[in-house]
Amino acid sequence: MTKRVGVIGGGQLARMMIAPAVEMGVEIRVLAEQPGMSARLAESAVGDYRDLETVRAFARDVDVVTFDHEHVPQEVLRALVDEGVAVHPGPHALQFAQDKLVMRRRLAELGVPQPDWAGVASRAELQAFLDDHGGRAVVKTPRGGYDGKGVRVVADAAEADDWFAAFAGERILVEELVDFRRELAQQVARRPSGEMRPYPVVETVQKDGVCAEVFAPAPGIGERAVEVAAEIGTQIAAGLNVTGMLAVELFETADERLLVNELAMRPHNSGHWTQDGAVTSQFEQHLRAVLDLPLGSPDPRADAVCMINILGGPAGQDIDERFADAMADQPEAKVHTYGKASRPGRKVGHVNATADSIEEAAYIARAAAAFFA
Amino acid sequence: MTKRVGVIGGGQLARMMIAPAVEMGVEIRVLAEQPGMSARLAESAVGDYRDLETVRAFARDVDVVTFDHEHVPQEVLRALVDEGVAVHPGPHALQFAQDKLVMRRRLAELGVPQPDWAGVASRAELQAFLDDHGGRAVVKTPRGGYDGKGVRVVADAAEADDWFAAFAGERILVEELVDFRRELAQQVARRPSGEMRPYPVVETVQKDGVCAEVFAPAPGIGERAVEVAAEIGTQIAAGLNVTGMLAVELFETADERLLVNELAMRPHNSGHWTQDGAVTSQFEQHLRAVLDLPLGSPDPRADAVCMINILGGPAGQDIDERFADAMADQPEAKVHTYGKASRPGRKVGHVNATADSIEEAAYIARAAAAFFA
Repeated sequence: MTKRVGVIGGGQLARMMIAPAVEMGVEIRVLAEQPGMSARLAESAVGDYRDLETVRAFARDVDVVTFDHEHVPQEVLRALVDEGVAVHPGPHALQFAQDKLVMRRRLAELGVPQPDWAGVASRAELQAFLDDHGGRAVVKTPRGGYDGKGVRVVADAAEADDWFAAFAGERILVEELVDFRRELAQQVARRPSGEMRPYPVVETVQKDGVCAEVFAPAPGIGERAVEVAAEIGTQIAAGLNVTGMLAVELFETADERLLVNELAMRPHNSGHWTQDGAVTSQFEQHLRAVLDLPLGSPDPRADAVCMINILGGPAGQDIDERFADAMADQPEAKVHTYGKASRPGRKVGHVNATADSIEEAAYIARAAAAFFA
Repeated sequence: MTKRVGVIGGGQLARMMIAPAVEMGVEIRVLAEQPGMSARLAESAVGDYRDLETVRAFARDVDVVTFDHEHVPQEVLRALVDEGVAVHPGPHALQFAQDKLVMRRRLAELGVPQPDWAGVASRAELQAFLDDHGGRAVVKTPRGGYDGKGVRVVADAAEADDWFAAFAGERILVEELVDFRRELAQQVARRPSGEMRPYPVVETVQKDGVCAEVFAPAPGIGERAVEVAAEIGTQIAAGLNVTGMLAVELFETADERLLVNELAMRPHNSGHWTQDGAVTSQFEQHLRAVLDLPLGSPDPRADAVCMINILGGPAGQDIDERFADAMADQPEAKVHTYGKASRPGRKVGHVNATADSIEEAAYIARAAAAFFA
């Protein structure tokens, strides 16, 4: 029987699962928030993912439920699991991606290296953390953040007053401001039956809190760091019982330690390079993992791969119009578009390039991406 | 504006255009012969491609019409073109893929190397050709042949009597039986505006008239033969005004000449290796070409690529069930399935593998394909 995967959320991550689903012979269905979203070709239902009845009806005709995002409420997920629906990643794992304080506590239990952190409930507690950490720190809302939202660097405890008000009766997260040399990302695929496949660790470059460029494998990284990153990734995947793709964002410190920054339990922007640069793309691997099928090889297909995001420009800009110019100029570049209306700063596509050196891959990807700037 | 491509025919070639269409942001619509065919995810209409009204209605809302097969009648195609519809390849080019006698005459005009041939209208004419060519020859119906059907080796002119009857008042094609060392295939993409991109020539192995294995690039082939093959391909693409993908099946003779066997004006089984083995797959390239977008690089992504077809076995065999075993055994193999019911001898999928040597690529692909035998 053809396997059916139901994806909750109609964004570009769901869209990019369509291609490998077609090639593998997996039937993909999408519960979209609105009609005509990025994953519209596989749209089979439209509705609110916070509504149990909507999600339950969607889940009825698929073999496994998975996600384009991590925002489906715990009570909805747990109800599905209680009814015997296969949900991957499951609610227990997803709680660690949904709440950063819960995540920090669990990583501490596992002994995973991470920045100093605390859950603080008041301006005084935050000030105490600041005083202990050189007067500056990163404050994060435990829930609801993405792409730099819900994250703020503060030098004065009063700068988080609005979040203390918004999360009254709870704690917010404060973390040391890590003196990092660069940011890395480690992806791991894990099946319900336990098989794991770590991808090579990559370097990510953020601009304004949004992933801008990825270099794979991470240039100039030592063998030991590659192993440590993979160990951190597999330890978290197993320790949190993650199923599907896990992305671990890491700081590489000036003194060569790796500290966990954020987690994502789904295909991730830091893994878009795998579409053209790895034997098994993260989107194919996610489908294999959530269906509990044997995982594919995560090996790179070139010495160097570069991914560059395309962000929307001024209103009215149509990226399709610029596509032809980019194609003509860079016939080696692979441009992926998300079928989304362009808005300033919105991720609307990305470019991958493979080459013998990272300089050459970056040149090709940047030259193509420049047509969309 | 998002470009819309309409594909006539719902088979696996249409199916395999879906993945690159999604990634490029091209909207793909399929006119399928029956509901639920291989390309069902993009099915937007079901009907008879021989019926002008059906095809006209389908063509109304797309920017270009292209094909999963070459069987749409000339009168339907010409009516569309007369009404201003962009049709690629166009009817003038397609006639050479639809009628092998018309093709042989045109290639002779172009001076392209091909086997000795003749159009024969009677047993006596066929016998004369046999007498001139050592007593054996290949007889072909001018139209309606595929995968070895409509092709017959004869040693006696009486063996073609049924075809003389079926094509009464016309001629059938007879060709010399070429003493070939192996079969090759040359693909070329060509845009309406004239840009062309030849792919590296590959070796194809046929079993029972059906493509079984492809090795890319053709192992051990000399530089001069690579150039000659590309020249033959581009000469035919330009001379026949082909738009989209052209495949030229070639005989490599014992004395190292290349002779044209057959033509196909669409993505072709000999190019399935490009999905995982070339910078630009033939399916992406076909979409680019028919939309008159700049063509992508046809360069291989590995030293060696092997493609092996998966044919259906006994009724009731479900290839999805065997997929997991193949995946577990060969994590480097890329298995593509067509979502078709399995019937003995029917193409239901293929496996691609890339490696540093053709021996290694063939080992991986064969090992994975063996699970489906």
